[in-house]
Amino acid sequence: MSEISELEGVFEQLWPLNRSLTGDGVRQTHKILGEMIPMNSIEVPSGTQVFDWTVPPEWHIKEAYVIRPDGHRILDVKDNNLHLVNYSMPFCGRLSLAELEPHLHSLPDNPYAIPYVTSYYNPGWGFCLTHEERENLPDGEYEVVVNTDFKSEGGMTLSEAILPGKTQKEVLISTYTCHPSMANNELSGPLLAAYLFKRLAALPERRLTYRFAFLVETIGAIAYLSLRGEHFKKWLVGGLVATCVGLDEPFVYKRSAQGNTLMDRATEQTLLENNLKHRVMNFYPWGSDERQYCSPGFDLPVGCLMRGSFFERPEYHTSLDNRELISFKAILGSVSAYESICLMMERNLTYKNLVAGGEPQLSKYGLYPKIGAKQEVEQERKDLLWLLSLANGCRDLIEISKRSGVPTARLHETAAKCLAAGIMEQTI
Amino acid sequence: MSEISELEGVFEQLWPLNRSLTGDGVRQTHKILGEMIPMNSIEVPSGTQVFDWTVPPEWHIKEAYVIRPDGHRILDVKDNNLHLVNYSMPFCGRLSLAELEPHLHSLPDNPYAIPYVTSYYNPGWGFCLTHEERENLPDGEYEVVVNTDFKSEGGMTLSEAILPGKTQKEVLISTYTCHPSMANNELSGPLLAAYLFKRLAALPERRLTYRFAFLVETIGAIAYLSLRGEHFKKWLVGGLVATCVGLDEPFVYKRSAQGNTLMDRATEQTLLENNLKHRVMNFYPWGSDERQYCSPGFDLPVGCLMRGSFFERPEYHTSLDNRELISFKAILGSVSAYESICLMMERNLTYKNLVAGGEPQLSKYGLYPKIGAKQEVEQERKDLLWLLSLANGCRDLIEISKRSGVPTARLHETAAKCLAAGIMEQTI
Amino acid sequence: MSEISELEGVFEQLWPLNRSLTGDGVRQTHKILGEMIPMNSIEVPSGTQVFDWTVPPEWHIKEAYVIRPDGHRILDVKDNNLHLVNYSMPFCGRLSLAELEPHLHSLPDNPYAIPYVTSYYNPGWGFCLTHEERENLPDGEYEVVVNTDFKSEGGMTLSEAILPGKTQKEVLISTYTCHPSMANNELSGPLLAAYLFKRLAALPERRLTYRFAFLVETIGAIAYLSLRGEHFKKWLVGGLVATCVGLDEPFVYKRSAQGNTLMDRATEQTLLENNLKHRVMNFYPWGSDERQYCSPGFDLPVGCLMRGSFFERPEYHTSLDNRELISFKAILGSVSAYESICLMMERNLTYKNLVAGGEPQLSKYGLYPKIGAKQEVEQERKDLLWLLSLANGCRDLIEISKRSGVPTARLHETAAKCLAAGIMEQTI
Repeated sequence: MSEISELEGVFEQLWPLNRSLTGDGVRQTHKILGEMIPMNSIEVPSGTQVFDWTVPPEWHIKEAYVIRPDGHRILDVKDNNLHLVNYSMPFCGRLSLAELEPHLHSLPDNPYAIPYVTSYYNPGWGFCLTHEERENLPDGEYEVVVNTDFKSEGGMTLSEAILPGKTQKEVLISTYTCHPSMANNELSGPLLAAYLFKRLAALPERRLTYRFAFLVETIGAIAYLSLRGEHFKKWLVGGLVATCVGLDEPFVYKRSAQGNTLMDRATEQTLLENNLKHRVMNFYPWGSDERQYCSPGFDLPVGCLMRGSFFERPEYHTSLDNRELISFKAILGSVSAYESICLMMERNLTYKNLVAGGEPQLSKYGLYPKIGAKQEVEQERKDLLWLLSLANGCRDLIEISKRSGVPTARLHETAAKCLAAGIMEQTI
Repeated sequence: MSEISELEGVFEQLWPLNRSLTGDGVRQTHKILGEMIPMNSIEVPSGTQVFDWTVPPEWHIKEAYVIRPDGHRILDVKDNNLHLVNYSMPFCGRLSLAELEPHLHSLPDNPYAIPYVTSYYNPGWGFCLTHEERENLPDGEYEVVVNTDFKSEGGMTLSEAILPGKTQKEVLISTYTCHPSMANNELSGPLLAAYLFKRLAALPERRLTYRFAFLVETIGAIAYLSLRGEHFKKWLVGGLVATCVGLDEPFVYKRSAQGNTLMDRATEQTLLENNLKHRVMNFYPWGSDERQYCSPGFDLPVGCLMRGSFFERPEYHTSLDNRELISFKAILGSVSAYESICLMMERNLTYKNLVAGGEPQLSKYGLYPKIGAKQEVEQERKDLLWLLSLANGCRDLIEISKRSGVPTARLHETAAKCLAAGIMEQTI
Repeated sequence: MSEISELEGVFEQLWPLNRSLTGDGVRQTHKILGEMIPMNSIEVPSGTQVFDWTVPPEWHIKEAYVIRPDGHRILDVKDNNLHLVNYSMPFCGRLSLAELEPHLHSLPDNPYAIPYVTSYYNPGWGFCLTHEERENLPDGEYEVVVNTDFKSEGGMTLSEAILPGKTQKEVLISTYTCHPSMANNELSGPLLAAYLFKRLAALPERRLTYRFAFLVETIGAIAYLSLRGEHFKKWLVGGLVATCVGLDEPFVYKRSAQGNTLMDRATEQTLLENNLKHRVMNFYPWGSDERQYCSPGFDLPVGCLMRGSFFERPEYHTSLDNRELISFKAILGSVSAYESICLMMERNLTYKNLVAGGEPQLSKYGLYPKIGAKQEVEQERKDLLWLLSLANGCRDLIEISKRSGVPTARLHETAAKCLAAGIMEQTI
């Protein structure tokens, strides 16, 4: 089975689940992803204090719909998860259209889209619908059924998958599974994470440890930091938040708050070396979970790599963010970019030229290039001289590449020859 | 009485006084200003060694004029203080025009202006006149009367006015009162200082202490540093030399020698935030008393804020720098700009986000903005997120503004809300 | 005798010598230069280990030529030193043209040039000729005579000339004498070094010590570093590699690897102040012996100052790099530029304004300029104020010049006046 058709299959399984901060939609999502890659789930009990926040009770939906005056059942959550405002409280009753109106949400400027609305910290209930449908609602008495439930003994589900490497130094890939039926701004992230895991698992060896986190946006990331924050302060060498990676648009890299961490340097170097069309933005304190990782208490080296600026598009947070919008090929392209960045992190080592005085005598080690087209020979020789000149035991390959203009992949090959000749050692 | 007519009244009182390094013209000037604001005068005795300089004897003028061959009295210091070279030694005698010539000063390129000439450290006497008048002087015998006097038991008068604040940290406003009848390059500075004092005195509270100095240029500033220099090294957080602030021209800010002190940052931030047309120049070691404050032995955070580049204009140091040239409205505009800079210094505090992990739960504190036009709500939310993200206990509001693009006034309001909610503390 | 005709005379003596890594060609070259300036020669014995390299046996040529099938003697080393591949092993024999071919070197794209080829670390023999001559070689049997010899008890000759100064701080001028008959890329360097020595020897006094090194490229520099490296780490304040300085082209300065050393700053400042047409390049790890001085084990402040980018021209490393190509006037121009840089190093001192508070009273010391054209007086006054303002005991004159825009020569004169007045002291 090709990667694309496998991807499509998993997408179809995940799409209908009604995800939220908590509840079975999330659990089921993690179970399906757990069939692809080995995941450990953590249940953070409702009521747990995580820094400034409290994990809410678990939300369950049995059914939710409205019956029109003519007896037609509309806005049924079975038809589209977005119809019900997320975290709606239970309600059953008969209301006039005027009474119902304050509970309805639609987008006058985007009349064929059902908006995605949540009410996590603001008790109430509501329904979302296209503005076109709303405009055509007849007067009369409506029957409203919101059969939901809050379980205070419930929990918030987070999951991790870990790929161990030779060292405890870690790279974090963080994504979220808390939005109901949306494609780019939900499923593209976890799908990328799962496929990236598979790619990295297939490497013959890994220097770094890779940790994949499937969270709930904001409160989930905060809860996760309450569990892993101290570990990250010690071991995290870089991290990326994977979100909105399903469109065939240029990559957009949002730097960590520090702005020049190893993660920032490796990501930007990869986008340049691989000739990937992209834009780089400095950190700003809204967006996805990089906000939490980069908050002043942690200030971790975590950026966010997206495709395009999805939150500026009309499909954002509506029913139009669906399977028709995204491209499975684009998701795989995003997986490849993330994989290249991880390989950049793997090979970004630091070397020291061991010859104490002047240049080594390259011909003695068979390192003086002779065979091949003149231009290649010349390039090979210059690559060698650059590496020998700049490898002082402190500069990593990305820095050496910035100074010399030689891509890190060529520097890495050159370093391997020098290591074999015994005139260089790896210092990190 | 409006501020403008009050200002005009004081100007009229100050204009005719014959100011110099020392003497009663200066004392009278300080007495008039002292009726507006509470000033303390310091008399530095003639002969006092102040660093590399010695305070000169006190200069007094009884009368000074020339009688033309036709018996006409001309160049009378009673008509214009500029007619007599400042610090002229006494002289009475009869001279031919040829003998008088070396003692005359005029400007061939500016024939209707009487130049301002001093002879502080170069004993002699002389008269200044328009070039037009000089060209029409008839041959014949002239009678010269320079009835001046040097009192070695005299002194040099400096005055201070202090507005105490909650802390001993000080802002210095320094100006000079040593030029005779000139308007922009003399009276605009002391008038600004007096009115700024009144504005700041009216504030409900002041965090900083403000010290206003009315000096003599160069030797007065050096004498003042010999008295206050060590205090300034300890307590001065910023200072401005107020000079040439009476024209309706763009502000010109000349940075301190260090070039990036708090004073420089606060002044430039204010000029930008308040949309005041302006230019910024790096320090150069000529100009006014910023030269002394920024000399290597002190290197204090003192800049100079002017209107236009007056010393490049033909009116500079001539009788054309008079009441017709300046604008009282411009002086009040300069007062307002200085006041805004002081308010910037007042509010430029440093805060620390007290939430240790991730973002605070804004809705818990009623800080999640909901009411108002969409754009305002969005701005309020982003201001909050910026401040929470950047308030690490070290960055001041000016730095946070530079990074976020949010004006300091909005950041200051946002900080007040966070302080009230208990999620932030002030660190400076 | 003018400098130019003397220079031409020395050139004529040096041109015919067959220089190489080792041997009598080098010794004879140093002997001739030693008649101009006092040199000490060092013989590094063959077989000596110098860092990663081993000094090779000494190479001697008795005769080398080829006899054409028609009996004509061609490619005789007596006609042109470049005919024989440098470091060729001995060989005598008869070969067909086909057998001879692999031993011939010519340049198809540059058919009238004999290339310069070496075989230092790749045993064999060969002949170099113009491509035109090669194309016309008739078939038949050729007689080859390569009567060379390797003396393992020989040595590699390096020489030094030292001009002592008041301090042990040193400036190094490094050049090489290992290429046979070439003009720009060989003789221009040693000739410049010798004439620069004579110029600096004529100075009334020197603050710095100047060390001139006449080396063999690469292995000679590495051997030299094995002898002087530790001394240089302690005492070298700057150095220049003199090579390819014989063309009337703009100066090209290649910075040291550190890129902002005193040598870099002094060279760039001189090229600017003296209005010399020039280009500046960052360090790259190929070129001449700056590679060895700047290698990570030493990282010394050594740059390279050339005229044009000779290695990009068709004459480079061929028989076309000869007397017709170069300009003796250009060599003397290069000597003058190097001399100006040395004078910049001499005068680039550090001063401290001794007046502790405010400005000194210039008129007291007769330093307040009065006489002269208005513009000159103004410039003199501003130069004084700049120096007094910036001379804080740490900044050197080059830094003060960069900040003030006043050329170092004028600052140096101004400093002399201040020293005489006792208001300034020299700190370095």
